[in-house]
Amino acid sequence: MRVNGESGNLISIRDRGLLYGDGVFRTLLVSEGQALHWPLHYQKLQHDCAALGITCPDFACLSAELAGLLAEHPDAVYKIIVTRGLAQRGYAPSPDSTPTPVWDVLPLPDYPASRILQGATLQLCQLRLGHQPRLAGIKHLNRLENVLAAAECTAADEGLLLDSLGNVIEGTRSNVFLVSRGRLITPALNLCGVAGVQRDRIMDYALRIGMVVEVREVGLDELLAADEVFLSNSVFGLWPVARLEQRRWTDFKVALRLRAALGGAS
Amino acid sequence: MRVNGESGNLISIRDRGLLYGDGVFRTLLVSEGQALHWPLHYQKLQHDCAALGITCPDFACLSAELAGLLAEHPDAVYKIIVTRGLAQRGYAPSPDSTPTPVWDVLPLPDYPASRILQGATLQLCQLRLGHQPRLAGIKHLNRLENVLAAAECTAADEGLLLDSLGNVIEGTRSNVFLVSRGRLITPALNLCGVAGVQRDRIMDYALRIGMVVEVREVGLDELLAADEVFLSNSVFGLWPVARLEQRRWTDFKVALRLRAALGGAS
Repeated sequence: MRVNGESGNLISIRDRGLLYGDGVFRTLLVSEGQALHWPLHYQKLQHDCAALGITCPDFACLSAELAGLLAEHPDAVYKIIVTRGLAQRGYAPSPDSTPTPVWDVLPLPDYPASRILQGATLQLCQLRLGHQPRLAGIKHLNRLENVLAAAECTAADEGLLLDSLGNVIEGTRSNVFLVSRGRLITPALNLCGVAGVQRDRIMDYALRIGMVVEVREVGLDELLAADEVFLSNSVFGLWPVARLEQRRWTDFKVALRLRAALGGAS
Repeated sequence: MRVNGESGNLISIRDRGLLYGDGVFRTLLVSEGQALHWPLHYQKLQHDCAALGITCPDFACLSAELAGLLAEHPDAVYKIIVTRGLAQRGYAPSPDSTPTPVWDVLPLPDYPASRILQGATLQLCQLRLGHQPRLAGIKHLNRLENVLAAAECTAADEGLLLDSLGNVIEGTRSNVFLVSRGRLITPALNLCGVAGVQRDRIMDYALRIGMVVEVREVGLDELLAADEVFLSNSVFGLWPVARLEQRRWTDFKVALRLRAALGGAS
């Protein structure tokens, strides 16, 4: 674990990351000493920092810290947080605040292989995501909606989140895709939700193999009628969905093809 | 400063307060060794913890910590944070997590007396608050909306926040009240916003002196047409509003009467 460029696992109680959730993060899979898709994660980190007006630490600086960690922890899940730094007084950020980079290293999760071969189960969350276009898509530290949703969705492998209008947005810790008549469809994240690195990679690959890719409003009915449904994130890669409430899916053809192409995720 | 029952100003980077903003807080004014309205603040803290399923530390425990701080810092602003505690894995809270109480002590702000006598200036924020009924009213640590709003509203003493429907909700760090034909009106906070201790005290006092008090949807037009507008929080107490964009107010009669009755705030 590293905080502010040094070894350590403690942060100031005056850091705006704690006080306001004023920061962003990414979760990376590290396998055999390689941080998978680190440049893509950094791009997202930089994008999200910019959206909040936080100065993102240099790629070279973070990469140097990362390299040090990889030598010690070659197989793990890494979390990189960038907060806006120490608070002065009140909500308004100081223009000269220095961001705080934080690295944490977590054990690899031990997901059963059945989630890939037989598919994962989904549960519909009661909590509906609120709309906030200024924060939508950003992986920021204001994650209480995910916490409350995950707390209620313990009967399945993942919880499915709708927004206040009833549209499908994402899983509590994943993005969601539909395959329908050969097209790949994923919800637009301009009003709420988090845009994952793996989501981008899946869309890129689908386009490259000639699939039609649609990013737009997706209703729950459309999801239930889809030929395939799958989930993605940077740790588990891609899970086909076998069940949502009463609906069962058994066709994972496109999902498993995309999963194989992505490679490198557990 | 105290963290987890001991002196200190550092918290674990695995605390859910940092990772997810998974916690609540209150800000107290401390004057001449007294923490003003501490029992009311504790009630709110307990209410907000319950709303998130966090076990609130005992009143006796927190009061004992507070007493120790009061002896050392008799005139200050105190912040009490209660997070859900250390993370296990992922968003779902562990049922046996132990909350982390955090106390911070900040210098008293040096607000000019003119904000009381001549009134404060308000600026309309571009950012609109999103609706999330599950989090509305709670003073939780997911405060990025306030951060972005405060960042843009630097031309006045306080920023006025509307919701996505254009209704008036609150200031970036205060609650807002209207006085209209002798009635006291304040926005309902069931979809967004933070319910302050001072807001409750003002409503209580207004009822006691026989005013009609209305808690409901408030449009911007209604605010602009009000006889008086004022702001409240636990640090500055109550500020009459002298200006919002082109609209000027000069009548502060009800506001200053309520302010005098509240007592004890700077």
